[in-house]
Amino acid sequence: MEKIKVGLIGTGYIGVVHLEILRRLPGVEVAAVADTNEKLARAAAGRLGIAKVHASGEALVADPAVQVVHNCAPNNAHFSLNKMALEAGKDVLSEKPLALDAKQSAELVRLADKHKALTGINFCYRYYPVVQEAAARVRRGDLGEVRALMGHFLQDWLFYDTDYSWRLDPSVAGAANVIADLGSHWCDLVRFVTGRKIVEVMAELHTCIPRRKKPKAGVLAFSTQVGGEYEEVDIKVDDYAALFVRLDNGARGNFTTCQVAAGRKVDLELQVFGTKESYAWSHVHPNALWIGHREKGNETFYESAVLQAEETRKYATLPTGHPMGYHDAVYNLFRDFYGALEARRAGRSVSITFPDFRTGHEAMCVLGAAVESHRTGRWTRVAG
Amino acid sequence: MEKIKVGLIGTGYIGVVHLEILRRLPGVEVAAVADTNEKLARAAAGRLGIAKVHASGEALVADPAVQVVHNCAPNNAHFSLNKMALEAGKDVLSEKPLALDAKQSAELVRLADKHKALTGINFCYRYYPVVQEAAARVRRGDLGEVRALMGHFLQDWLFYDTDYSWRLDPSVAGAANVIADLGSHWCDLVRFVTGRKIVEVMAELHTCIPRRKKPKAGVLAFSTQVGGEYEEVDIKVDDYAALFVRLDNGARGNFTTCQVAAGRKVDLELQVFGTKESYAWSHVHPNALWIGHREKGNETFYESAVLQAEETRKYATLPTGHPMGYHDAVYNLFRDFYGALEARRAGRSVSITFPDFRTGHEAMCVLGAAVESHRTGRWTRVAG
Amino acid sequence: MEKIKVGLIGTGYIGVVHLEILRRLPGVEVAAVADTNEKLARAAAGRLGIAKVHASGEALVADPAVQVVHNCAPNNAHFSLNKMALEAGKDVLSEKPLALDAKQSAELVRLADKHKALTGINFCYRYYPVVQEAAARVRRGDLGEVRALMGHFLQDWLFYDTDYSWRLDPSVAGAANVIADLGSHWCDLVRFVTGRKIVEVMAELHTCIPRRKKPKAGVLAFSTQVGGEYEEVDIKVDDYAALFVRLDNGARGNFTTCQVAAGRKVDLELQVFGTKESYAWSHVHPNALWIGHREKGNETFYESAVLQAEETRKYATLPTGHPMGYHDAVYNLFRDFYGALEARRAGRSVSITFPDFRTGHEAMCVLGAAVESHRTGRWTRVAG
Amino acid sequence: MEKIKVGLIGTGYIGVVHLEILRRLPGVEVAAVADTNEKLARAAAGRLGIAKVHASGEALVADPAVQVVHNCAPNNAHFSLNKMALEAGKDVLSEKPLALDAKQSAELVRLADKHKALTGINFCYRYYPVVQEAAARVRRGDLGEVRALMGHFLQDWLFYDTDYSWRLDPSVAGAANVIADLGSHWCDLVRFVTGRKIVEVMAELHTCIPRRKKPKAGVLAFSTQVGGEYEEVDIKVDDYAALFVRLDNGARGNFTTCQVAAGRKVDLELQVFGTKESYAWSHVHPNALWIGHREKGNETFYESAVLQAEETRKYATLPTGHPMGYHDAVYNLFRDFYGALEARRAGRSVSITFPDFRTGHEAMCVLGAAVESHRTGRWTRVAG
Repeated sequence: MEKIKVGLIGTGYIGVVHLEILRRLPGVEVAAVADTNEKLARAAAGRLGIAKVHASGEALVADPAVQVVHNCAPNNAHFSLNKMALEAGKDVLSEKPLALDAKQSAELVRLADKHKALTGINFCYRYYPVVQEAAARVRRGDLGEVRALMGHFLQDWLFYDTDYSWRLDPSVAGAANVIADLGSHWCDLVRFVTGRKIVEVMAELHTCIPRRKKPKAGVLAFSTQVGGEYEEVDIKVDDYAALFVRLDNGARGNFTTCQVAAGRKVDLELQVFGTKESYAWSHVHPNALWIGHREKGNETFYESAVLQAEETRKYATLPTGHPMGYHDAVYNLFRDFYGALEARRAGRSVSITFPDFRTGHEAMCVLGAAVESHRTGRWTRVAG
Repeated sequence: MEKIKVGLIGTGYIGVVHLEILRRLPGVEVAAVADTNEKLARAAAGRLGIAKVHASGEALVADPAVQVVHNCAPNNAHFSLNKMALEAGKDVLSEKPLALDAKQSAELVRLADKHKALTGINFCYRYYPVVQEAAARVRRGDLGEVRALMGHFLQDWLFYDTDYSWRLDPSVAGAANVIADLGSHWCDLVRFVTGRKIVEVMAELHTCIPRRKKPKAGVLAFSTQVGGEYEEVDIKVDDYAALFVRLDNGARGNFTTCQVAAGRKVDLELQVFGTKESYAWSHVHPNALWIGHREKGNETFYESAVLQAEETRKYATLPTGHPMGYHDAVYNLFRDFYGALEARRAGRSVSITFPDFRTGHEAMCVLGAAVESHRTGRWTRVAG
Repeated sequence: MEKIKVGLIGTGYIGVVHLEILRRLPGVEVAAVADTNEKLARAAAGRLGIAKVHASGEALVADPAVQVVHNCAPNNAHFSLNKMALEAGKDVLSEKPLALDAKQSAELVRLADKHKALTGINFCYRYYPVVQEAAARVRRGDLGEVRALMGHFLQDWLFYDTDYSWRLDPSVAGAANVIADLGSHWCDLVRFVTGRKIVEVMAELHTCIPRRKKPKAGVLAFSTQVGGEYEEVDIKVDDYAALFVRLDNGARGNFTTCQVAAGRKVDLELQVFGTKESYAWSHVHPNALWIGHREKGNETFYESAVLQAEETRKYATLPTGHPMGYHDAVYNLFRDFYGALEARRAGRSVSITFPDFRTGHEAMCVLGAAVESHRTGRWTRVAG
Repeated sequence: MEKIKVGLIGTGYIGVVHLEILRRLPGVEVAAVADTNEKLARAAAGRLGIAKVHASGEALVADPAVQVVHNCAPNNAHFSLNKMALEAGKDVLSEKPLALDAKQSAELVRLADKHKALTGINFCYRYYPVVQEAAARVRRGDLGEVRALMGHFLQDWLFYDTDYSWRLDPSVAGAANVIADLGSHWCDLVRFVTGRKIVEVMAELHTCIPRRKKPKAGVLAFSTQVGGEYEEVDIKVDDYAALFVRLDNGARGNFTTCQVAAGRKVDLELQVFGTKESYAWSHVHPNALWIGHREKGNETFYESAVLQAEETRKYATLPTGHPMGYHDAVYNLFRDFYGALEARRAGRSVSITFPDFRTGHEAMCVLGAAVESHRTGRWTRVAG
């Protein structure tokens, strides 16, 4: 069967991760890349043997050779490119957030439905094998009913006032920073693992470093600037946030996120306390699921193609003890997405096991409520 | 020099811990114990060779042979016994909370000042050597300014609806359960380690198990009931709580506590993120302080009578690697308290390095604000 | 530039890992695969879009389209296929062991030199970024002189007597099992990290399960048999081994390996104690290097493209905190190997930063000495 | 009942630990102490309110007021003082080793039998609650048959050549250092947890630091010298040792010990691999027992007065999650010892649940075989 032709917009940190993973999918070929920083795009294309480089995301979306668009542009370009791609009849795998607000993301869901597009959003953390396993065990009833949850997502790449990123600029990134960038991942884990919706939130957003040195030349994510000219800018968005959540079954949860936590790198954790047992998962040791008990010793369950629930075994692609990493989680998501695409092409029934634009829209609604809650200092219902 | 004569009220779980530790202090003798459950008191006295058993806390306080009162009675008896002891000119080491509300605890502070009593409150977690070390490093400036904090205190001893305790009865325990019992310890760690006051809070209290089976016979803390008759009772107090805090320097923090978290035992954690480095301490591995860095590897600092700051070395009473435990933390607190008593007796200057009734009153003010915040659903200033 | 054409022999567990990784290298194309189990080979080829399937390793080696041979056949086919490939003027990346004894591996080194072949051996554990970093720090003098080492490699895939593998059959696997299969990896880590040779050994080999149920149908590595017919066979090779080592500077070390250690999966660890500091690395948390100190807290150093020594940064291919896994370690090795191939093709100077047939021969010498030591019950010099 | 009168010889590090723990036993009183460093003895006596100080161990043993002798003198005084005490009809709790060789320790066992003395030896690590639990589970059959074991005991207090101790002087400490001091603890854990005897050993002893700076003034264990005059001395005893063991059921084991391992403090570990499951215990996290499984997640079992086997619950003296420490382990041993003494006084049947002189003699036999094995470079049978 002919390979599926992919076009990718945005060749910064996460775009390159997409390209690396796409190489591992036998039925897929990257036909084109685009970046407003054309030099960056050309470098990636040259290194990875990609034939075509477009000067803009719009040009790439318009390219008839592109069947699936991977949208790794900065946040403020997400909505228009996603919209254009859907309207052009393409399937889309987008980085989060889908858009800058829930009205836009609702529009994208509508367009995806209308055009019968397959859509995906890169909530990749749910694709570690034992996160899939935790969700399967909740569905199976092992946990009982969820009573409470807790978690955090900590990083330190914005620790110094000399650290800068477009994520700190509301005109590019949107009204919120860390609660959007990191918080949305945690909320997605809650949604996925518990199967429950967040229906009400109380948020506090805070700017630990209210003034930063912005380099006059641009910077890439996760890179450190050395010397160079800069200007002092006021920072209006959060680099710390805290969030109380209430789920649709009445369960309560609490979340903390921060990007100035020295020594914490990609420290994402979720703990779920149920009526029968507890689960804890930490991205610091992503291959193990902790299962807590009252009446016996606690368990550490490792990813396993043998011991996991039948529907989640395929995500443990190495024998137990050969640690899977971040690349492998993204691979699992992409494999599900392209598996669905191939099923559709082959006329087989398509099952949406991956996060799609509906998922992304729900995340926007939670985020919107969090921003509103912070503004008013009150509990706020999540729309939708 | 003659031994200091101690009387102890309340011979349940924590009272027995006090008695065990008091045996390790050479200059101290337990002269009497009291418990409303006289059988329990007699058993403890017999086992530990204590001469006198009083039938009530009041009788013990009135006993002229008793110089120092250890108050381990249930919460609703704290205020009156502490008050009586102070008015009788005795020194007092009380379990927390000092009283049922901040008005009462303010009164106790006033009485302690008036009678020049030495007072203490058993916030023992700050007495692990590396917690002392963390506080010393903050004072020394190693951490820089505190920007944010995070933590939790999780247990599972109330996991089943067949678990019951007087702590769930507001008439005995006061208006709140877990935010008071466990939350006060965390807030004390924040106060002690950062040297900063909590000035504003937003709280959510929640009852995960709203109906429990209360045994008709009484139950002791941390014990499990087996069979026996019970009655179903509605639970009005929290077994889950979440708390946003703001410190007096503008730093933000977030805390979660829960007593129905299967598999978590005495899982208390504090993380402090400063402008220079980060600290994390977990009671699960209480002898190590984690120190986080952006520009180099993170550190694990073990308790050490050699490497700690000079003022905290005395708390590391064993060579590094010989783990100190909960008993040793309580011992460190008692040793500081009785060291001050001996200094006063000897006419030497007395330094209050331990948590006293003023500390306990501050904790009551935070707790009061939390309960009020939950009631109103709004941020609430801490009094005082 | 035209892609390098690869042929791979042996499409079991590790062969498939090779194929997965080869897909990630832009300049490389898998032209053919071979397996004596042709069905297995056809399945892999179909799944991964590989054009040609040979019925035997010999046929693949003889295929003029194949420039580089990946040898993932069982042990007893390693020598003849590696030899044939070298004599055919091909470059070879072989699984270990290179051969069944040191005489054979010496011959392969001679042939590789004669034919100026690039050779590699898949000692992949040294390719985790922080293992590279540990070696760089030893070279830089941070550790001082190595005084002592310790480690283990534990698994449980042979825990039951119903577990069987060709590795337990000396006619296929050679004279030793676990000391060869797992021990060789540990010895390679010692060689690589310390830069020192093992010159003398004392070994004990032991068979914990001396009789096993061998399925009449074959089994693949890491797979569990379910039901089916079997025959009882006596096991003559080791599933537990212990090894004292002496390095060429007089340092001492001790190693334990076992494949019947319930609950241990791919639990490989090396600890190195130097005159200035200590290092410990465990495959259970492969992204962190522990650095031990006497006079200050210990360090946990995470893989980092920013903080690592300059020569090892390229192995940290994700921002710190995005965990790299087993796939990424193998990728790093392959990238070094094919980087050298491309340099040679381009007429640039070639630097052998990866383990080659000389490395593999040294490992065979250590293994030979271990087997001899076990036979005689005495310390034995390592040849060469 | 009248208190049991104890006399303690040797008021250095471990003697003071004994004194601390003895204070916690209600039925026991320390009547006298002795140390050749009389100033040290007087200081301890003053601090702890002990009435009598003897100028020598012999004088203390001869004191009719002393009923039980705690022997914490240096190794070369163990035999003669233990012997004298037994011949004087006293009960003895001795530090290990009991004597300098197995002939002497055999003599002590004979004397203890003859005088019907209660004897104990301070192998305290077995008294952590979960070590007791591991042994109980082996007895109950949970582990199945032991197949293999592994472990280590690492410290760094002799890391620098300026570190010195009487343990490095064979005339005081005996023929071996680290294999005796630390190895004997590990061998005792093996004996206790598995219930099996070590019957054959292969050892390597090594001196990492063959020349040290010995201070002209004496030094205490675990203390660091600062400046002062010293002389260079050759070190003839081991600061690194490795030991293969064979148990009486044919199981194999391997052990490494080292006192120059920078960053390792009291890092004692035992892993036992059985036919049904595995256990691992590390003194670094002494309150948890790891239980390994092939067919399900591994378990972490915390000390628990509720969940442990009935016979081991009494050793978990705090509610689960309140960590017990080194002091509590020693306390558990002393409590068993004095419980037996009280039972004997009361005419009740006496059960020897603690390590006694027979245990200590067995340890001497293993140590003797290890020293002999190192001398000959061959496997050596353990006598007795």
